[in-house]
Amino acid sequence: MTYSVAILGASGYTGAELVRLIATHPGLEVRALSGDRKAGMAMSEVYPHLRHLDLPPLQKIEEIDFDGVDLCFCALPHATSQAVIAELPRSVKVVDLSADFRLRDPVEYEKWYGKPHSAPELQKEAVYGLTEFYRDEIRGARLVAGTGCNAATGLYSLLPLIRAGVIDLDDIILDMKVGVSGAGRSLKENLLHAELSESWFPYSVGGKHRHLGEFDQEFSKAAGRKVEVQFTPTLLPANRGILAATYVRGDAAEIHATMQAAYGDEPFFAVLPMGEVPAAKHVRASNFVHIGVVKERAAGRATVYATLDNLTKGSSGQAIQNANLMLGLPETEGLMLAPVYP
Amino acid sequence: MTYSVAILGASGYTGAELVRLIATHPGLEVRALSGDRKAGMAMSEVYPHLRHLDLPPLQKIEEIDFDGVDLCFCALPHATSQAVIAELPRSVKVVDLSADFRLRDPVEYEKWYGKPHSAPELQKEAVYGLTEFYRDEIRGARLVAGTGCNAATGLYSLLPLIRAGVIDLDDIILDMKVGVSGAGRSLKENLLHAELSESWFPYSVGGKHRHLGEFDQEFSKAAGRKVEVQFTPTLLPANRGILAATYVRGDAAEIHATMQAAYGDEPFFAVLPMGEVPAAKHVRASNFVHIGVVKERAAGRATVYATLDNLTKGSSGQAIQNANLMLGLPETEGLMLAPVYP
Amino acid sequence: MTYSVAILGASGYTGAELVRLIATHPGLEVRALSGDRKAGMAMSEVYPHLRHLDLPPLQKIEEIDFDGVDLCFCALPHATSQAVIAELPRSVKVVDLSADFRLRDPVEYEKWYGKPHSAPELQKEAVYGLTEFYRDEIRGARLVAGTGCNAATGLYSLLPLIRAGVIDLDDIILDMKVGVSGAGRSLKENLLHAELSESWFPYSVGGKHRHLGEFDQEFSKAAGRKVEVQFTPTLLPANRGILAATYVRGDAAEIHATMQAAYGDEPFFAVLPMGEVPAAKHVRASNFVHIGVVKERAAGRATVYATLDNLTKGSSGQAIQNANLMLGLPETEGLMLAPVYP
Amino acid sequence: MTYSVAILGASGYTGAELVRLIATHPGLEVRALSGDRKAGMAMSEVYPHLRHLDLPPLQKIEEIDFDGVDLCFCALPHATSQAVIAELPRSVKVVDLSADFRLRDPVEYEKWYGKPHSAPELQKEAVYGLTEFYRDEIRGARLVAGTGCNAATGLYSLLPLIRAGVIDLDDIILDMKVGVSGAGRSLKENLLHAELSESWFPYSVGGKHRHLGEFDQEFSKAAGRKVEVQFTPTLLPANRGILAATYVRGDAAEIHATMQAAYGDEPFFAVLPMGEVPAAKHVRASNFVHIGVVKERAAGRATVYATLDNLTKGSSGQAIQNANLMLGLPETEGLMLAPVYP
Repeated sequence: MTYSVAILGASGYTGAELVRLIATHPGLEVRALSGDRKAGMAMSEVYPHLRHLDLPPLQKIEEIDFDGVDLCFCALPHATSQAVIAELPRSVKVVDLSADFRLRDPVEYEKWYGKPHSAPELQKEAVYGLTEFYRDEIRGARLVAGTGCNAATGLYSLLPLIRAGVIDLDDIILDMKVGVSGAGRSLKENLLHAELSESWFPYSVGGKHRHLGEFDQEFSKAAGRKVEVQFTPTLLPANRGILAATYVRGDAAEIHATMQAAYGDEPFFAVLPMGEVPAAKHVRASNFVHIGVVKERAAGRATVYATLDNLTKGSSGQAIQNANLMLGLPETEGLMLAPVYP
Repeated sequence: MTYSVAILGASGYTGAELVRLIATHPGLEVRALSGDRKAGMAMSEVYPHLRHLDLPPLQKIEEIDFDGVDLCFCALPHATSQAVIAELPRSVKVVDLSADFRLRDPVEYEKWYGKPHSAPELQKEAVYGLTEFYRDEIRGARLVAGTGCNAATGLYSLLPLIRAGVIDLDDIILDMKVGVSGAGRSLKENLLHAELSESWFPYSVGGKHRHLGEFDQEFSKAAGRKVEVQFTPTLLPANRGILAATYVRGDAAEIHATMQAAYGDEPFFAVLPMGEVPAAKHVRASNFVHIGVVKERAAGRATVYATLDNLTKGSSGQAIQNANLMLGLPETEGLMLAPVYP
Repeated sequence: MTYSVAILGASGYTGAELVRLIATHPGLEVRALSGDRKAGMAMSEVYPHLRHLDLPPLQKIEEIDFDGVDLCFCALPHATSQAVIAELPRSVKVVDLSADFRLRDPVEYEKWYGKPHSAPELQKEAVYGLTEFYRDEIRGARLVAGTGCNAATGLYSLLPLIRAGVIDLDDIILDMKVGVSGAGRSLKENLLHAELSESWFPYSVGGKHRHLGEFDQEFSKAAGRKVEVQFTPTLLPANRGILAATYVRGDAAEIHATMQAAYGDEPFFAVLPMGEVPAAKHVRASNFVHIGVVKERAAGRATVYATLDNLTKGSSGQAIQNANLMLGLPETEGLMLAPVYP
Repeated sequence: MTYSVAILGASGYTGAELVRLIATHPGLEVRALSGDRKAGMAMSEVYPHLRHLDLPPLQKIEEIDFDGVDLCFCALPHATSQAVIAELPRSVKVVDLSADFRLRDPVEYEKWYGKPHSAPELQKEAVYGLTEFYRDEIRGARLVAGTGCNAATGLYSLLPLIRAGVIDLDDIILDMKVGVSGAGRSLKENLLHAELSESWFPYSVGGKHRHLGEFDQEFSKAAGRKVEVQFTPTLLPANRGILAATYVRGDAAEIHATMQAAYGDEPFFAVLPMGEVPAAKHVRASNFVHIGVVKERAAGRATVYATLDNLTKGSSGQAIQNANLMLGLPETEGLMLAPVYP
């Protein structure tokens, strides 16, 4: 059976990545595409690499006929998403890739995003889209909130350890090295090739990165108490990928065993042998996650390394994985594409 | 029906690319892998990005049991290939990715590769693997010789024009800009990141590039007379891709129409609207070819631009496309993966 | 003796490059900097790499006191430059880095730049800033028009050959591979890291690149007849540098000898041994030019390769070289910085 | 006055960087160059970017006449250096860029480098080359041991804080992001462009990086007690630069004030305003160091960011700074070259 999907905000990188993945997904077909500023254009004009596909033109959202659309991917900017989703027919399932429905607490939402939420009712209904940890809720959800890409990387690095109680909850530092596509196709000076190539620098420093809201919510929930980690990303001269070093206090062997237990049966995860470390390129353009655990020389210190592709497992691949569950399709369908190397 | 394949020389980039493509190919499965210097290692040690796959270990070629192997991809170094293929059971079909069987004339082979061919009988039997131009022969072949990656790019740019007689045969210049993976995973100083990043330079200058042998053979055959083009590649700080500018004398509109006629029905080709030009990234990690035609300001001058991914359409994707034909599978099976962007 | 200079348009890359070079130039000091949209900011806010220098703040042009300014570098956008320069005191020497005064013929200017020139009197007065070919005129000039960076590369490749009459004037093709900084710090989608890294593509195709105006002017003048070359640049995933392949008809040995005769005594030029080719990185961040000549396999065919750094020898370094001449300083002063490698 | 220097091991990147810097240094001239495997070649064959310089040919060390050589830079591999330096005339001052004389304690040397030191007498005599902290000793030294490039970055980040007692000595984590030229020009698979571009990965994990020996020595000495930090570098797809995030416990304002006090008068240092962070490219190809301090959201937590160019301030620029002191030249002579941007 083939399900029809609409992609709202298809002119951004996550939109293009959704189309790329759906192109060889046997259970999904693209029924409609929206791109407000590019409405009227063919997708192949905006993204010539999709030229071989027979795709509907970019439309304004209000022009889309949602009859026959089974599921809608919303890859719209933050804040826009909540307004648009509130207007969609209730019969359409929704996977939202924006930040709008990630935080359950409206107070937290306002704290991190700077204004009140406009659709608090929907916010309650939304299921957090970290598939491996919310699988059952996602299966039955109408609205799934895709995680932040950095958030996913950090959550995968820590959630099993917090749940199992094998690390000190008050001394966790996340240092992420991230490619530039996470910032989208926006025209900002520091995203120019001439600025970024041969450069790298931290950003959103000092506890200001918005994905901290997701960390606080999920880690505190898992621990049953307030947990606030330290997290800073560094932007790298690379297009795709996130590699996180998570500095923790705990027994490395116990941490490694906990990771193996948590992810051993997961189709998209590989826990490397103790002491081995992943490389960002080993998962590029794929839905896979590689995790390594290293014992440090100081007693009781360990480091967890995790890598994923921000556009695939960190957003659009995750979205399709969730859509598969919501539509009753096999969870891995369309997502077993091997990483592209070199 | 699933066919079993062996990949000889799986530790190189074209070997890894074959495995990547076969991973989601419904009609092929990897039965055996060889890698002489890495025999005994798991493929995931050599290429951790393939860690999620259940693959046979790397063996020495002589350890491989070819019983039950339907087709063998040979991704071995030049000269090694001819010796190995001569020893394979005749029941095994072969797609060779080396240069060993591309040139029909032993004299030409020796001229470009510096020593006599050791398997001239096989050389006669081999079919040149430029799928769109040798489809029928490939279907019936036991041994197909994959083209050079630069050769493919140039042949796609020119063969329809030479066949149609719409360009001057004595004034053709091919200027190719190529990514570094075409040079393989070999340890050479000028392939180091520190050397190549922020640098670019021509190589094999002065009519010395070996793919000229393929050009001479195929263009002369198509023209029914001797044709010798001028060709120089420039190595770029990029991993995948070839973009060729072909400078010709001819009527741009006629050239464009000829291209449309030649490639209009080809599943992997897009001929862009007149005056538009392709970008290397628009076909990255895919089997697609984008072609553009531009009219120059000087009367009777035009430029043909063509781009493809050297590891996919330029070698391993082409190899699978040919294998599909040889095995009676649909030609595009496993090859419709969309390009990875950005 | 130290001369005082102003830099108008200091917030662009050529402005920053001027400051970089002047920082260790013993004969020049920066008296004033303009940057209209960034007026009021410190240069170190716009370019933190210049933080160690004691520089005047960015001002609006009309706020600058030109008393005591010996020479003004204008790194303003095209069309703005002509209006601004017309208002400068006649006592201030000017090196203009824009395109405004490169073309002597107002008709040609309008043809390539799309509107009439607003300061045709100044246009007459301007000396074309290709130092090695206009040294004497530059020494006595008040207004020098810096060349286009692609134009400089092509002119260096061809002017000696055209003057010496050793190549066919009607069959010249310039294929340039260029880094992205030539496009400036402007916010354009195709200049984003995510778009350009791992991509490359031709632009201004079909005889539309504006530097053709400079080629037509200078080559025709050198030849004493109309010469119109073919020229297309390809944008690469690299920040600095231009490498030109110039395809010509002529005797390679004679071409090589002509180059050696033309550039043998030039302090910034190296003519490589016959058959050797330059690499872009060998001149990076320097004022040097490397030139190679290659004999092609077709009789009477040769290729000239030339590389320079577009921001240094192609614009700001050239500008300082010209300023040195105009101010009576040694021509190479401040410009002997060795290339940065790797 | 001009001093004559020899560079032993000139065919590596630090050797080439020494030549680049000396090219415009008014007080130094290159008298001799060694490069064992490349003896007999011109430096311009090994590094064509130095083609414009009049340099002595590469020789074997034993062929060099040290008469008239005032100072010798040793850019030889570890272990080789100690044997060579032991044979040099005592009248020649030496700046060693290898690891051979960094560690004062022979036991520590053997622990980190795996074999006994062969010149323990020289080891005692050597002064550690962290200029800003050993200025007086360096002035009078005959043998100065250049620091590791990562070591320098970490020492600059922490030494003032440890001396001032403003951070917790038992909870220090150094996360460094480093460019590839620190690994030298060696032929290793993971240094290939195809491997590293679009990839990044930690290495020497688990407390195994040899620069920890320098950290242990210098931090313990500064603290007057044993201090063992945690340190892991991540290799990035970039050529030059190191950016360290140092995670500490301490009052951010106090840390910032301590940094300003320590570095306020240093010619090569900039301490950014509180909360601002450096970028690797802001110091590229220069001898400058940029330092930022950020207050974290957890009480008593701060992060120190420091960036320098591994080939300049991290090795060859530092070496020249030290040589200037040893020869009685102004400390900054030849080293005020502005960073290259973009």
